Amino acid sequence: MFSTMRFDVDGIFEIKRYCLAARIGKIRTKSGFLETPYLFPVIDTRRQFVSTQELNELGFKGLITNSYLLFKRKEIVDDIHVYLNHDGVVMTDSGGYQILEFGQVNASQEEIIGFQEKINVDIAVILDVPTGSNANYAKAFESVQSTLNNAQTSIKLRTREDILWVGPIQGGEYLDLVKVCTQRLSSLPFHILALGSPTEFLERYNYEKVLQMIYTVKLNAPPSRPIHLFGAGHPAILPFFVALGVDLFDSASYALYARDDRYLTSLRTYRLDDIYEFPCKCDVCRKFSPKELRSLNKDNRRRLLAKHNIFVLAQEMAIIKQAIYHGTLWDLIQSKAHYHPALFRAFKFLINHKRYLSKYAYLNGMGRSGLFVLDHERPELLSIKKRIKEHMLQNHSIKKIAIINGQKISSIHELYKKINQIVNEFKTILIFNPLIGLIPFELSEIYPLYQLDVENSVSLKRAALNSINFLKRINVEEIYVDDELLLNLFRKTFHAKVQLLTKHNNSN
Amino acid sequence: MFSTMRFDVDGIFEIKRYCLAARIGKIRTKSGFLETPYLFPVIDTRRQFVSTQELNELGFKGLITNSYLLFKRKEIVDDIHVYLNHDGVVMTDSGGYQILEFGQVNASQEEIIGFQEKINVDIAVILDVPTGSNANYAKAFESVQSTLNNAQTSIKLRTREDILWVGPIQGGEYLDLVKVCTQRLSSLPFHILALGSPTEFLERYNYEKVLQMIYTVKLNAPPSRPIHLFGAGHPAILPFFVALGVDLFDSASYALYARDDRYLTSLRTYRLDDIYEFPCKCDVCRKFSPKELRSLNKDNRRRLLAKHNIFVLAQEMAIIKQAIYHGTLWDLIQSKAHYHPALFRAFKFLINHKRYLSKYAYLNGMGRSGLFVLDHERPELLSIKKRIKEHMLQNHSIKKIAIINGQKISSIHELYKKINQIVNEFKTILIFNPLIGLIPFELSEIYPLYQLDVENSVSLKRAALNSINFLKRINVEEIYVDDELLLNLFRKTFHAKVQLLTKHNNSN
Repeated sequence: MFSTMRFDVDGIFEIKRYCLAARIGKIRTKSGFLETPYLFPVIDTRRQFVSTQELNELGFKGLITNSYLLFKRKEIVDDIHVYLNHDGVVMTDSGGYQILEFGQVNASQEEIIGFQEKINVDIAVILDVPTGSNANYAKAFESVQSTLNNAQTSIKLRTREDILWVGPIQGGEYLDLVKVCTQRLSSLPFHILALGSPTEFLERYNYEKVLQMIYTVKLNAPPSRPIHLFGAGHPAILPFFVALGVDLFDSASYALYARDDRYLTSLRTYRLDDIYEFPCKCDVCRKFSPKELRSLNKDNRRRLLAKHNIFVLAQEMAIIKQAIYHGTLWDLIQSKAHYHPALFRAFKFLINHKRYLSKYAYLNGMGRSGLFVLDHERPELLSIKKRIKEHMLQNHSIKKIAIINGQKISSIHELYKKINQIVNEFKTILIFNPLIGLIPFELSEIYPLYQLDVENSVSLKRAALNSINFLKRINVEEIYVDDELLLNLFRKTFHAKVQLLTKHNNSN
Repeated sequence: MFSTMRFDVDGIFEIKRYCLAARIGKIRTKSGFLETPYLFPVIDTRRQFVSTQELNELGFKGLITNSYLLFKRKEIVDDIHVYLNHDGVVMTDSGGYQILEFGQVNASQEEIIGFQEKINVDIAVILDVPTGSNANYAKAFESVQSTLNNAQTSIKLRTREDILWVGPIQGGEYLDLVKVCTQRLSSLPFHILALGSPTEFLERYNYEKVLQMIYTVKLNAPPSRPIHLFGAGHPAILPFFVALGVDLFDSASYALYARDDRYLTSLRTYRLDDIYEFPCKCDVCRKFSPKELRSLNKDNRRRLLAKHNIFVLAQEMAIIKQAIYHGTLWDLIQSKAHYHPALFRAFKFLINHKRYLSKYAYLNGMGRSGLFVLDHERPELLSIKKRIKEHMLQNHSIKKIAIINGQKISSIHELYKKINQIVNEFKTILIFNPLIGLIPFELSEIYPLYQLDVENSVSLKRAALNSINFLKRINVEEIYVDDELLLNLFRKTFHAKVQLLTKHNNSN
């Protein structure tokens, strides 16, 4: 049963693609690869609403269950994969959640570690002490201290090297504690870091709090470490967390909502009583009308609702992954944000952290779509501007430049015609774009400079001001512009230096 | 085969619920009821990618096919329901589209009418002359004239009274022609009016043009008449058309996109080549990876893509219907608008026509959800304000009023406590709401006054100004307010009339 694999902390995660701070990656386990972002459905071994086979059919290649409950119930488990009838990846949680709920568990760290190794899990969580959402600072501090002690102890208790170990980050809403906990766990041999205690904030739609916690983790963890978020499973908010850099989720939400007669959709939750027509065509929603489902007995109703809910979650994770690949995760988030006020506040958080979100844009592959730029807030604009600035500073003779007003140019053909007329005379030709500022013409073909689909009217003056500041910094000596508008804009600052391009051409 | 039913023009459509100008309705045909909004999948009898049975399983109870093609090919059709293996509703189109494409058809109006009656269709379209999108005014005028002549002639050619007849509205982008055509057809015995020629505008993402055409139709057709839009079948834009009042669609889009290796989603189209993971869990997307689908031969690939595409369309129509029922169609549209610039422009069109969209709000049932009010543009706010104004003018002693600043009140309990203190002294107590203005306290429980989830900061001054204008109009004599802010706001206009409520209470 024991494999001979050995997993280094930094050797299990391969990142394939970025969009914002989200990434498509691959985690290696002894039971095969798991592609991220990924959500582990929580399996309740006593009362499972959706079978392992149904989950597999939806593409769930990894499951999570609670090792403490199996241990406490003295379940005879030889290999958890056999027990769950699942030959993919199995992660087990420890009894941390039960500590939060009941104050303590009847198991030692040694027992929990040993049990998880014995039942042959692929990804295991040490016994932590969750902070929860009601702890005061002293209590929170204590929970972090205990968790870090446990983390330290757990390492010596490990006997297998083919299991990925998860370090649970506690501290709750106290960000300095989250920071310390993340830093300490990052220095220990944990393959995956997992942020705890978000569930109660999520239930109160306090998404900003959770985003703030995630952001703190991301700033203090190595970028190469996969980040797991415990207990977040509403499809509406998942892409926001992924955008910030969460790779893994686990959630029993599909079953918990079902128990409460609640029906998930990508944008919201409906009470079953409020549904006239199921806004979905999954097997359940095709077979039953809302009225029929309401008339079933509790158990059947909940089983079917859980089946629908997990369908929606599977679909949402696929939507997110495709959006990352396609370079349109921001569009997806912007769209969701305008459906619901809580999502809108989460969106505002992301806008306020756009510098962080644009950090990885250099690593992105070529996007497949034009950028839909509603306003100046889109994070990708920052990295475009940065790329241009670096290019300019490295490559350009800056004494004499020509600036073409890109606002009036409707095709790349028209642009090239203009450029051809002056390309012999000017080494540096810049195109003025009202959203970005000045773009060197040799970059004008690069995605997405000519694919910006500018919708709102944007501040021309703001762009001009940015351009002027930049021109000042590089000590430009002569500026030739191709229309009166730019002449007026730039002349205020550069006086005699600015001339009309046509006049200049004629006089030569 | 001939039924004894007889359908009056105004007796076939029952409207059950409104949201914006959208409605859930029921159309009676000789083959049963059809609930609207509804999209008829177009059946190509020669080369159908998705079987009738599969369509039925997705909930499609009505199909449309082209009667002219059946006629031309001399197909032996006894009963179209048997021929299509479908016992629900069958609509047939005439050869109008073929006239647009080939300039003419080899069939007379008499033949087309007779053929549709003979094959026992439930909903039939007369032979029209589509305007298309490239016609100049003279050509467009001619097409409307011919269509109206045909409409007139067709009535005398009918021999059955159990078929619903569709009057095709032509005129294209020439709105005066659309108007005349709608008015004329409305005066003739057509059960359903159908707007033609949008397809080419839709292909160019010129949604505003189509919205403008629909709006013209809606203003000139009887509200009780179902409105059909020919050839619009992209899920992303459908809710916008429904919001404006379109009840019926037909579309071959699912098959046409599939032929072009295009994959539909609720928000956008993907080229099959651009898909990394299918953002969907329908039978096709569960069974095949994008890579596997790409490797299939053309026919299999297209059959499977069509199956996915029609799944998405079925789902979208269900999403729309549930949103109408739930009172959240605006939220759905607002969300979609922020995904794509063309949808954003369509959204702007709806905002510019919010007065029209709020017209039916009186007829809405109780909404099930709080209003997410991003700004002043939400159409429902207009009807709320109107309802309040009417209530005030009818019911209130206006000499002496008390105004409570609702901004500071966080619960209905707190509000009632405040009101109880002054209710004996004032007949008229108004609550100041920064979005709506003044709300009589007896209306404060009514949806959605206390369910507004105000996200953006809104103009307090604007609300105050509206309130002041209203108070002026009703000649109020004494105003008592409960805080300094309101005192300052109102005193500028009403001078000595305005006093602080606390002071007033103490002095009595």
